[in-house]
This record gives sequence, structure tokens and C-alpha cells, in this order.
Amino acid sequence: MQIPQVECAMSKLNLFLLLFLLPFSLLAAQSSDGDPTKRQHRLESQTDHHSLLLAQSKPVSNRSVERDYDTFTSTRGGVEIVSSDGEFSATMGGRLLLDAAYYDEDKNSLGNGTEIRSARLDMEGRIFADIIYELSVDFADGDADMKDAWLAYDAYHPWRFILGHFKEPFSLEELTSRKHLTFMERALPNALVPGRNMGLGLQWHGEQVSVAAGLFGDDFNDDSDDEGDEGWGVSTRATYAPIASERSVLHFGASAAYRKLDDEEEYRVDIRPESHLTDVRYLDAGKIKQSRTLTLVGLETAWIYGETSLQAEWLASNLERDDDTDIEFSGWYVQASWFPTGESRHYKHQQARFGRVKPLSELGALELALRYSTLDLTDQDVEGGSSDQITVGVNWYYKPQMRFMMNYSLVKNDRYADADGDLENEDEPKILQLRAQVDF
Amino acid sequence: MQIPQVECAMSKLNLFLLLFLLPFSLLAAQSSDGDPTKRQHRLESQTDHHSLLLAQSKPVSNRSVERDYDTFTSTRGGVEIVSSDGEFSATMGGRLLLDAAYYDEDKNSLGNGTEIRSARLDMEGRIFADIIYELSVDFADGDADMKDAWLAYDAYHPWRFILGHFKEPFSLEELTSRKHLTFMERALPNALVPGRNMGLGLQWHGEQVSVAAGLFGDDFNDDSDDEGDEGWGVSTRATYAPIASERSVLHFGASAAYRKLDDEEEYRVDIRPESHLTDVRYLDAGKIKQSRTLTLVGLETAWIYGETSLQAEWLASNLERDDDTDIEFSGWYVQASWFPTGESRHYKHQQARFGRVKPLSELGALELALRYSTLDLTDQDVEGGSSDQITVGVNWYYKPQMRFMMNYSLVKNDRYADADGDLENEDEPKILQLRAQVDF
Amino acid sequence: MQIPQVECAMSKLNLFLLLFLLPFSLLAAQSSDGDPTKRQHRLESQTDHHSLLLAQSKPVSNRSVERDYDTFTSTRGGVEIVSSDGEFSATMGGRLLLDAAYYDEDKNSLGNGTEIRSARLDMEGRIFADIIYELSVDFADGDADMKDAWLAYDAYHPWRFILGHFKEPFSLEELTSRKHLTFMERALPNALVPGRNMGLGLQWHGEQVSVAAGLFGDDFNDDSDDEGDEGWGVSTRATYAPIASERSVLHFGASAAYRKLDDEEEYRVDIRPESHLTDVRYLDAGKIKQSRTLTLVGLETAWIYGETSLQAEWLASNLERDDDTDIEFSGWYVQASWFPTGESRHYKHQQARFGRVKPLSELGALELALRYSTLDLTDQDVEGGSSDQITVGVNWYYKPQMRFMMNYSLVKNDRYADADGDLENEDEPKILQLRAQVDF
Repeated sequence: MQIPQVECAMSKLNLFLLLFLLPFSLLAAQSSDGDPTKRQHRLESQTDHHSLLLAQSKPVSNRSVERDYDTFTSTRGGVEIVSSDGEFSATMGGRLLLDAAYYDEDKNSLGNGTEIRSARLDMEGRIFADIIYELSVDFADGDADMKDAWLAYDAYHPWRFILGHFKEPFSLEELTSRKHLTFMERALPNALVPGRNMGLGLQWHGEQVSVAAGLFGDDFNDDSDDEGDEGWGVSTRATYAPIASERSVLHFGASAAYRKLDDEEEYRVDIRPESHLTDVRYLDAGKIKQSRTLTLVGLETAWIYGETSLQAEWLASNLERDDDTDIEFSGWYVQASWFPTGESRHYKHQQARFGRVKPLSELGALELALRYSTLDLTDQDVEGGSSDQITVGVNWYYKPQMRFMMNYSLVKNDRYADADGDLENEDEPKILQLRAQVDF
Repeated sequence: MQIPQVECAMSKLNLFLLLFLLPFSLLAAQSSDGDPTKRQHRLESQTDHHSLLLAQSKPVSNRSVERDYDTFTSTRGGVEIVSSDGEFSATMGGRLLLDAAYYDEDKNSLGNGTEIRSARLDMEGRIFADIIYELSVDFADGDADMKDAWLAYDAYHPWRFILGHFKEPFSLEELTSRKHLTFMERALPNALVPGRNMGLGLQWHGEQVSVAAGLFGDDFNDDSDDEGDEGWGVSTRATYAPIASERSVLHFGASAAYRKLDDEEEYRVDIRPESHLTDVRYLDAGKIKQSRTLTLVGLETAWIYGETSLQAEWLASNLERDDDTDIEFSGWYVQASWFPTGESRHYKHQQARFGRVKPLSELGALELALRYSTLDLTDQDVEGGSSDQITVGVNWYYKPQMRFMMNYSLVKNDRYADADGDLENEDEPKILQLRAQVDF
Repeated sequence: MQIPQVECAMSKLNLFLLLFLLPFSLLAAQSSDGDPTKRQHRLESQTDHHSLLLAQSKPVSNRSVERDYDTFTSTRGGVEIVSSDGEFSATMGGRLLLDAAYYDEDKNSLGNGTEIRSARLDMEGRIFADIIYELSVDFADGDADMKDAWLAYDAYHPWRFILGHFKEPFSLEELTSRKHLTFMERALPNALVPGRNMGLGLQWHGEQVSVAAGLFGDDFNDDSDDEGDEGWGVSTRATYAPIASERSVLHFGASAAYRKLDDEEEYRVDIRPESHLTDVRYLDAGKIKQSRTLTLVGLETAWIYGETSLQAEWLASNLERDDDTDIEFSGWYVQASWFPTGESRHYKHQQARFGRVKPLSELGALELALRYSTLDLTDQDVEGGSSDQITVGVNWYYKPQMRFMMNYSLVKNDRYADADGDLENEDEPKILQLRAQVDF
């Protein structure tokens, strides 16, 4: 009985050593970057960060002036400062997403209303050329929800080593920023996606190929009263884009993830009907006890041909339980979009995800979109329910940083989709949602 | 049975369509702003927001340098960046208010102590000349309390269309920033004021007249577990200032608001004795059940003659209940202030509210102030209590962005003012409060 | 019954339309304000902080440009702006600390895992030459934890008067920023230290001597439902450094504090085993009732000789209870560190605490450290337990603003160290902790 435990402890220890030594070994290989006097100068000019401000009440000296002058600032609604040698930089930005939703109810009550969907401040920057960081907090729920909080080693571009709280490399739609999604909310199968966790990752991209992998603990705000060990997992995603030009893209990708659940051995998955204002989660598999490990796979494809685009993903999970009765969930979505005003969706081949749409005309860009998504959380004794949803979307990009969205959805829940018993099943509401979005 | 429901659903749908189409119709009317090549250039140079920072580890190119150089920065304790064409800008600022209070108790216990009254960070900016935004968060209570979070369309100055979380246009004192209030806390009748909610509004001002109106949902952090529909309301305020010069102002204003309460049909109003450090709220009307709609009216006036000023407001509410027994509350205040050092209160005629006082001398400005306020929350079966309060204030404006305040109040509660039964009635404490305030 | 409701809904809608549209239709014929002198006036009156941004959509005038040009910006990963006369400045910065911990358990369960130890945004600045402020918020726990929030009067440097939420002047290790501590967590005796509270303080320093004293209320987020008066206290610290050169320091210090507990008369002290990821607090004196006053004393010394340093502190507390049976706790630590790569710990003689280590070489600085700490919370009827802890630390400072830390600790708890009865006593776990840290 004891020996397996020891081995388990040993493997955990190995993980930790790996976690700690990997950056060292990467960095130790670094040779000096050529110009020692420049580097030396940089080191010498490292006055303490705030000392200029706090340590004196006299006017700034000439020397400071000369040094500080070599900085370039810009704004596109936020703050951006770059040192003239490009080795240091900082940006302050954020986003604001304002939502309203009207629910055409069927059997269950759904609360119409308005909300701030996202109100985020981001600070990110570059330190000593090689190190970049991001710290991003969302205040939409009346508290402070930490989003991206990581630092990365960026000396061997396009390789990047990243450490902190960030999204596991899994699923095209998950990795695309909410700012740039075609629809207001991600599709139902996103319930299976791991999202942000604490961990370390390695990324690489070429002209057509990108690869990312990571080792992750739990989310940083995992219940802290529990003294059971956190779970951990690994994720990886690989993409191949045989076509990746400005207005013509063909993209394929596959993701895989494995997770050892934490000592509570409890797995929970649920999701709202692609609308955030309600708190109803028709699909809810409840707490699945005695769960040991979770395996996830995802396949994705996207195709852009001028104003037209298609995108689809299939996701499936396998949950291994102590009694070896595996639970399997799966879902998929397919969506199409068309810009009557002539724009094209923007594919960022380095990260293999979608980016910002820029209107061609004064009047902005118009996008029409259609999505079908489905997710089934029922398997064996777990009756989480299944749901199909069709959404029509109209997006008006008034500026590259500002858009308005309207989504109209038809929801079709099956007889198990009862919010783990809290609601009436086979509910078929319709949802009208509006959003105003700005980022800066 | 069905027909009224359908009609109700239809009218809700109408509201949503209106909400969504109003910005479109406003914006669709916009003609191009003259120089198409410049606008085109602007669109083309919209590289992704953070790509400069994240996509390269090389020094910034010459092109970037040229572009970025056309930016002007300034600081008055915060950060301000404006692009040279004035079309983009960003400011980071905030405020810090530090309070201490001593309660000379009568019957009930009131806890002396200190607190951070407000610790706020603001980010605001301008995007593509026409769009402005603000995002403001207060951290004083140990969590993150979202304050202003809106975006606005500003192309037809002095017209402004605004969307998001902001103050309903109601009451001179409410709309004046806490930074620029004459007393540490707003007067008792402020309990009736709607404050910030999610909505959309339209503002206009001329030389002597200002008008503002809005349509609002509930506060964004309305209880989310409840699947009843949110309430909604409309507010409007009009002001007329026959005199509006630098040191001589005569201001009249009227506000009106109507609110359909949410599906819980519960109205609650209470207020502290013009002191935030205690949590005692003598005036508390409890939860008034079966409340349908609330109608508010307010009248306001202000007069500035050099160093002297007067200000007064009268507010009244009518709460309609299901049994048609209306509940009426009302209150008013009048205040006077005098600057022995010669300054004058600062009236901002565009927003028709008060702004920053700037000391004339090195030693700062001294202001003496007196206020009487009263509020009666007792009507029919609702016994919320009535209270009168006299406050003497001494303000020392050391700098335009820094001031110290001292308030001494005499409180007189009537026999219903018992915090909804939690406290002894007819309490008559005295309150001494101090504040240090800086904003940046 | 139904028909009146329908009519009511309709009339509400009408009321809304009236309120919302009437003022605008009345004003629709108004001409634009078209008066260039007024526009000029607006620009000249640019004193209000944000009016430049919000009051106009036209390009910035030449006058503004000239004024704003006299500003110097810099970045070392954050944002720093200083006006050319040095009278105004602002910095935005922050920190990110990422932790992982592995517990080699003995008797009790300790949860392995990862966390964000600190994710902080700071804004600080100078206003009108004499006034400085800081506002700092930590988001690591998923909420917003206010840290430094103060303003200070700095006209008579090296005197400084400070007001707000800041650390009481007590203990060398407490006053040294977490960013610059030799070990990942402060030593066990830190449990006795008062930390940050709301108050006012006075600081002075000479070449070799520093003195600080303050008067403090409770922590700003003291339980607000309680209407008992807050406690208050005074703290003072004096230091003397007969040697205070770049690489050679000899430092002595003494602190004393007195605190009147609040009306609840309850004193609580507990501490984790120098590891933050677990929530286990072996040493826990429980709630000591009927406690009136607390007296604290601390002695500290530090010695730097080139690459080598020693540091030690002794702390003791005396808690006076209503029955005059005093409770006494005490603890101490001693630590040594050595830089094989030739650096030296950085002593800031003005604040008499430690600062940033700057690596001499491309490969960064390596520091080896050893600490022994002990704390005894058992006295008379209070059985809080006693613990000894030995920690080995390896720090790698890759850059002045970035370091990696590894701590390995041996913990030895006595028979009273049972987390106030919640855990098995005489637990002797081993702890391995890792940290990646960046500040900007």
C-alpha cells in the first residue's frame, strides 16, 4: 500500500523539479547578445523603479532628462510607452462590454436585463528585451477576477516560454479573445474546455504551423480551505494552415489534454445557453464523484475566402472513474459568416487564432453570421442533458476597436436538460441579446 | 389571460429594439468628416492594439518611431496622453479619500474609527475622435466596486449619446462628484435618488440650458440568482442658468424619474446619518412589498455671488403598490457656504453641476459651510422615520487636487427613526468627521 | 382585472417615450454653439483634470502642445511620467509573484499546488512638488486587497508626514518589501507584527539614523457591522547604521508599539509555516478574550560585508487582560546569505530597510541563504504552540526586476502546535517552494 504512494510523491516531485529547472536550462543556454557596453549601460541605468519619484523633491536632473527622452509614447485609447531601444515597454489598456438580453420564455423563467459583461484593465510590458509580462483583471462581477497573469521568456522568437495564469492551449474558439469572437458567447461545447489555469507552457510557430504545450495546476483560486492536493494536467495544440494569406485562409488544428483531478475526485461541468445574463444552466452534469482523470480531444477547422468564412470544432471528453465506468461527453459547432461590406475575418497565423476585424469604410463593417452548436452531457448514469442551439448574429464594426452585436438564438433542450433537476426539461426558449463593445 | 402577456412581451421587445437601433440611427446620419485620405490612413495604421509589444523582440522600427512621436503627454499626478491630431487620448487617474469619525453617542452605539472612504482608479480616453469611454473602479471596501463604465458618441458636440453604467440624470448634488461636494456626505434626501444604473442616455447643453434624459435597467450587480426580469426606469433633468459667469451664477433645475420595479416587487430605502463610517441607518423604510412603480421628482436651485453661495434641493417620491395605496416620501436641504479667502464655488454650466475649487493663494482656500437637511420616510403603514440634521463644515483646499474637511453634525431622529426596529428611537447623536482627500 | 394592467403598461411606455423624446424634439432646432471665443476659453480653462478629453472632439491646440511637451516619460516595464519642472509625476507599475509548493507531509494533510502569490497594480505620483501619494491594490486572491493607500507631505525632506493606510513602523523584515525579501515568506515571529493600518506618521532620516513614529486606528477593513469603537495604537522605530556604504553595512534597530484593542476585547494571532499555499496555521493562539492592551517590542540587526550578510530580529509581545494575567509571546530569527556571483544585498539607509539586488553579470546573480526561526505562542492558559523552522534558500536574480526562488524548509512543531485543536500536534513536515517573480 505504501510503495505506490511514495512513487506518486516522487512523480509529483519530478514535476516540480521540471517546472523549476526548465526556465533555468533554457536561459542558461543564452549567450550574451553581442554588445557588452550596451548591456552594461543598461545595468547601470537601473535605478530603483520608483526612486526617481520618491527619493527626491527636487526637479529632475539633466541626466534623467536625457535618459527619459529616449522614449516613444502612443495612444489608441490606451497608454503605450516604448523605450527608444525597444528593450522596455508598457501598455495600459482594457475593454468594456455592455450587454442586454431579452428571453422569450418557454417553460422556465429567465430574467431579462442588462449587465456589464466585461470591464477589464490590462497592463503588459517588456523588460530587458527578453521578458514580457501581462496582468489583466476583470471587474465586471463587482469583484476582481484575475485573467491573464503571466510572464514569458521571448529571446528565441518564435519560441516562447510562458509561466503563470493563462489559457491552456486547447480549442480555436477558446483561444480567440472574446473581443474578436463572431458571436457574443462561445458555443456550447466550450463547456468541456479547460480555460485558464496556473502553469507553464512552450509555444512555437512557423509560417504555416503552430505548436503549443503546457503543464498546468488548478485554477489559482481553487478552494483554499481544502488541504487536498491540487489536480494537474497537460494540454497541447497543433495547427496547420496550408493557406494563410490576408484574405484567404485554410486552417486545421487538433488539441489534446489530460488532467488528473484533485483529491476531492469530483468533476463538474455545466453551461449556460450561450447567453451570460441568465444564470440558468440547462446542461449540468452535477458533481460526478470518484472521478480520477479526464481526457479531452478537439478537432478544429476554419476557412476564409474573402468576405466569407466557415469555422467548426468538435470536442469530446472521457472521464475515468474509480469503478472504471468511463463517462463520455461530446459536442460540436459549425458557423458561417459573411461581410456584405467586403471585409474579411482576420487570422493571426502566429497564434493560430482570430483577431481584430477592421472596417473598410467610414460606415463600418457589417457581418452576418449563423451558428449551430450542440452538446451532450448525458452518458450512462450521468444525465446532464443535451441541447441544440441555432444562433443568428449581426455584427456592426463601427471602428476597429468598437462594435455592436445582436444575437438571436433558438434553444432546444432534451428531457435531461433540467439544470441537474432544478428546472423543467425540454425547455425551448428564444434569446435576443445585444452588445456594445469597445476596447482600448 | 394570454393577450396581456403577449402585449407585454411585445412592448419589452420594442424597448430592446429601440435600445439597439437608437445608436445606429444616430450614427448612420453621420457624414464623412472631410478628409478621406487622412481617415483612410488612420484605418490602415490600426495595427492590432498590442502587436507592437508582443509580436516582436526587435527594436522599434523607424516607422513606429515617427508615428509614436506625434503624441503629447502630461501629468498632474496622473497620466495623460493625447495624440497630436487630438483624435486619440488616454488618461489614468484616481482619488484617495481618508476618513476618521468620532460619534458623540446619545442612546445607540456608534463605532468611532477610520476608513478609506474612496480609493479609485479611473481610465478614460478618446478613440477615433468621436468615441469616448470611461472605466472607473473603487477599491475602498476591499472588493472592486464598478463605478462609471460607459462609452459615448461625441461627434455632435454639445450633443452626447452615452451607453453603459453611469448616473441617472437626477439631482444636482448626486451629479456633482464626491470630490467637489461642499460636505463630506450628501444630504439625507439623497436616499431617494436613483444613482448609477445600466442604461443609455442623451445629453445636450447650450449657454444657459442643459437637458439630459436616459432609459435605464437595474444596477449591473443586481442579484443574479433571481431569474425575474430586471426593473427599468427613465430619468430626465433640465436646468436653466440665467446667470452663469465665473463668479456669479443663478441656477434652476428640475428632475423627474419613473421606475418599474423588478419582478420581486420590493422597494427598499434607507440612509446613514450623513456619515459613512457607521453602518447605522436610522431612517429605514424596510422592504416595502408589492411595490410596482416609483415616481420621483426633484427641484434644485443654486446661487453663487462671489465668495458666497446658496444651494437647495427638494426631492419627493411616490411609490405605487398593488393595492393602490401610494406611499410618499420627501425631503429637502438647504446649504450656504462662504470663502473668507476670496475663492468662489466653480459651476460647470455644460454639465450643470459643481466642479473643482482652486485656491487663490499659496496657503490654500478656506471655506465655511452650513447645511440643514431633512427626510421623512414615514407614510401610512410604512414607518421609516424622519430625521433632521444640521452640519457645520470647514474645508481647507490646500491645492486644487487636495483638501481637508471637517464636518460637525447635530442629528435629531423622530420616534420612527429606529433603523426598522433595530435601534432605540429619538436618538440625537453628534458627529465629528475628518477627511483628507487627494485626486490625480 | 387584466385590462387595467395592459393599459398601465401602455401608459408606462408612453410616459417613457414622452420623457425621453420630448426634450430632444424641443431642442432639435437649436443651432450649434459656433462661438470660437468660447472654444478658446474652454481650452484655457484646462485645469480640470479630464476636461481636455471630455469637452472637445477637435484637435489639441498649439498652446496645449507646448505645455504638454515639457514632460519626460520613461519605462522599465511600467509607465513613468515626470513634468519637466519635477513638480508633478505619475508612475504605474506592479508585480507578479507565481508560486508552487510541494509538502512532504508528516501527520497532517497539506495541499500541494500552485497559486498567484501577489498580482499588484500600483499607481503613485507627485502633485505640486510637495505632495506624494500611492495607491496599490493586490488582486491575487480573486478580490481586490487594498495595500498602500496614502498621501504624504514631502516639503521638508528628509522629514515626511504621511497619512492613510500604510505599514506601521515596526520590524526590519516587515518594512522590507516582499519583492526584496531573501526568503519567500517572512519568518515566524512576523505573526506578532502589526502590519498595515489606517493612521498618520512622521518619518525622518539622517546619514546613519532613521526615526519613524505613527498613530494608527484599525485596519481599514475592520468588521463594519460592529458598532463598537475601533482600537488604536502607536508605533515607533529607530535605527542606527554606524556603517552604511555600498557593500558594507552595520545596522541596529529597535521598535516599540502599544495598542488599545477594540471594544470586542479579543486578540487573535496565528501564522502559517512560512508557506502561503497551505492554509494550515499550526501556531494559533485562538481568540484570547478580555484582552485590553498589547505591547510589542522588537530588536533588529543586520550586517553586510560584500557578498555576505547576516540579519536577525527578536520580537516579543505582552497582552494585558482584564484579570491582569498578562500573556507573553516571543520569537526570533537569524539568517545568513551569500552571493557566489559577487553581488551584495542592497541597504537603503533612508528607509533603513533592504532594496533591490542588481546582478553584475549577464547570467544573473545567485544567492544562497539559510534561516532559523522560532516562535512560541504558548503562555499560561493560552496554548498556541511553538514551532522551529529551518529554511535553505536559493535565489537566482536573472534581472534586477526578475528572480526565481527555491525554499526548502524543515518544520518542527511542539505538542501545542495543533492549529487551535484542529490538527495533530508535533507535526514535522518538509516544504519545497518555488517562485517566479517580476515587477515593473
